[in-house]
Amino acid sequence: MKIAVDIMSGDRSPAELIRGCVLAAKEYQVTVIIVGSGEVIYHELKKYDFPTEYIEVLESDEVIGMSEPPAIACRKKKNASVMIAAQAVKENLCEAFFSPGNTGATLAAALMMTGRLKGVKRPAIASPLPTIQGHAYILDAGANVDCLSKYLVQFALMGETYSKYVLDIKNPKVGLLSIGHEESKGNELVFKTHQALKKIPFHYIGHVESKEIFSGKIDVIVCDGFVGNIVLKEAEGLGRDLMRILKTEIKKSVVSKMGAALMMKSFKVLKKRTDASEYGGAPLLGVNGSVLIGHGGSDAKAVQSAVKTAVLHIANDVTHHMEEAILKWGM
Amino acid sequence: MKIAVDIMSGDRSPAELIRGCVLAAKEYQVTVIIVGSGEVIYHELKKYDFPTEYIEVLESDEVIGMSEPPAIACRKKKNASVMIAAQAVKENLCEAFFSPGNTGATLAAALMMTGRLKGVKRPAIASPLPTIQGHAYILDAGANVDCLSKYLVQFALMGETYSKYVLDIKNPKVGLLSIGHEESKGNELVFKTHQALKKIPFHYIGHVESKEIFSGKIDVIVCDGFVGNIVLKEAEGLGRDLMRILKTEIKKSVVSKMGAALMMKSFKVLKKRTDASEYGGAPLLGVNGSVLIGHGGSDAKAVQSAVKTAVLHIANDVTHHMEEAILKWGM
Repeated sequence: MKIAVDIMSGDRSPAELIRGCVLAAKEYQVTVIIVGSGEVIYHELKKYDFPTEYIEVLESDEVIGMSEPPAIACRKKKNASVMIAAQAVKENLCEAFFSPGNTGATLAAALMMTGRLKGVKRPAIASPLPTIQGHAYILDAGANVDCLSKYLVQFALMGETYSKYVLDIKNPKVGLLSIGHEESKGNELVFKTHQALKKIPFHYIGHVESKEIFSGKIDVIVCDGFVGNIVLKEAEGLGRDLMRILKTEIKKSVVSKMGAALMMKSFKVLKKRTDASEYGGAPLLGVNGSVLIGHGGSDAKAVQSAVKTAVLHIANDVTHHMEEAILKWGM
Repeated sequence: MKIAVDIMSGDRSPAELIRGCVLAAKEYQVTVIIVGSGEVIYHELKKYDFPTEYIEVLESDEVIGMSEPPAIACRKKKNASVMIAAQAVKENLCEAFFSPGNTGATLAAALMMTGRLKGVKRPAIASPLPTIQGHAYILDAGANVDCLSKYLVQFALMGETYSKYVLDIKNPKVGLLSIGHEESKGNELVFKTHQALKKIPFHYIGHVESKEIFSGKIDVIVCDGFVGNIVLKEAEGLGRDLMRILKTEIKKSVVSKMGAALMMKSFKVLKKRTDASEYGGAPLLGVNGSVLIGHGGSDAKAVQSAVKTAVLHIANDVTHHMEEAILKWGM
């Protein structure tokens, strides 16, 4: 089993991501193909005592920046690390790749290189959101802004399959994001999708509201990519700004400062629960292979988590199960 | 100036809401028309020493419940408190009404009774969201799920006028909710709306992301009612669940418990900042009058806040300014 990791993209140093590659190779005993500047990689690898059979290097001399327009950048920079990583999947050098860079570029590279699974109309980004008990996955989280109901039905099937075979959830609960539980509430897209989802023999719990996302009662939340991306970024912003208000208040009083110091452990748990590096990346579902899109701030731990996810994805033959579900219920 | 308050709807007791009416009449020296069961109202009013010239009573012997289907309930229960309150505006007995009940019923009652301002295609609910520095208003927050760009343009104009004349913000910053700052990011509705908003001579700051909503950098956030409602409910759910996680962690350790006790003041400020009763209600913009939709949990303080908002709305002739803006830039 081989997994390519793009160590040039993202906000952290290549050195940090290479460390993650070495740790992951050791821990999971799978081959990690480090993709990036040969000079940097070979220099960094000297620092480690690592199992050489589990580390390979694919050189790339270009990088796509966080703010470059994805489609244009992918066409112009054929040697960009994310393109080389995606190409490695295309050429069967590996079964998976992870890139913590420009989300649009990772998406474009994957679509250009790996192609789609049979029957899949639109691949979707399934993004993890922390809940009281664990994580829920929302899809699509931004790959497809204007959607038809048949795309949403496929998102539901892909998300359910992923939850079952990668996250090991026995009977994943699938919810359709709407503005009320009643069948009469929602927009046209929701009405049509709901009618189709009711007919699929999986654990469909009907309409769910955004205030329930974090409750842990839903495993897979289905919506179009515009709404999904807004939900995702709101969680990010609100979490940050609530803490900011609290910090400002704490600073105003010595007593509160003492209290906050005593509560540090609880705050740390809260931070860990909402920490992106804990789950590594958001899978791009519906493409031919395991593709993981990392947060720009991904560190060594995020690389390890992503490799672990890719291992589960491949070992459990998720793309096969997904294709089967799509062909049976999503056409 | 007269303002009707529906004290029968909502989750709190009529007694609590009547208390709010008396406090508001005293504080703002405007006439509050209390709408509801005469028996209850006259009994409660005996408890207070209040300026009789500022309190009137409109009797109603029906109530629309929180979970009743709005349109049907409004047609069947002509004597429901929310209908009587809306009718009072229609018959020029008052200029404003507030109901803390079933949002859909308040909306339906307002549309049936007060009618729309000249040129307004779709009235919209402008819902306040707490920010680091104060509040931002998002509209539409749920009245219109499937929207055309011309509706969104009107939402922007109505929200801007409201911010200027009710909230006293000099040059309100209007943002269009999307999934990136770039003009190239968004869905079809966003693309079309953006082109139209650019031409209006107000402080339009372009695309904004949901992670910025709470930053205090935007005064008016424009989106369709499906997205707006999801954003609103997510903020509600996430705030609640983050606190729930934190509370669970605090309980696990004596040290954390002590810390939390010392931090109580800071937590209280945070709660106050995110407390719905601080701002009373969400205005329904585009109807002929001042209509405020309250949270189900509205208490006496929320009634006071709502009356204050209605006073500002009427005193500053906001419906007139809104109509002017719509006819000039929104047709």
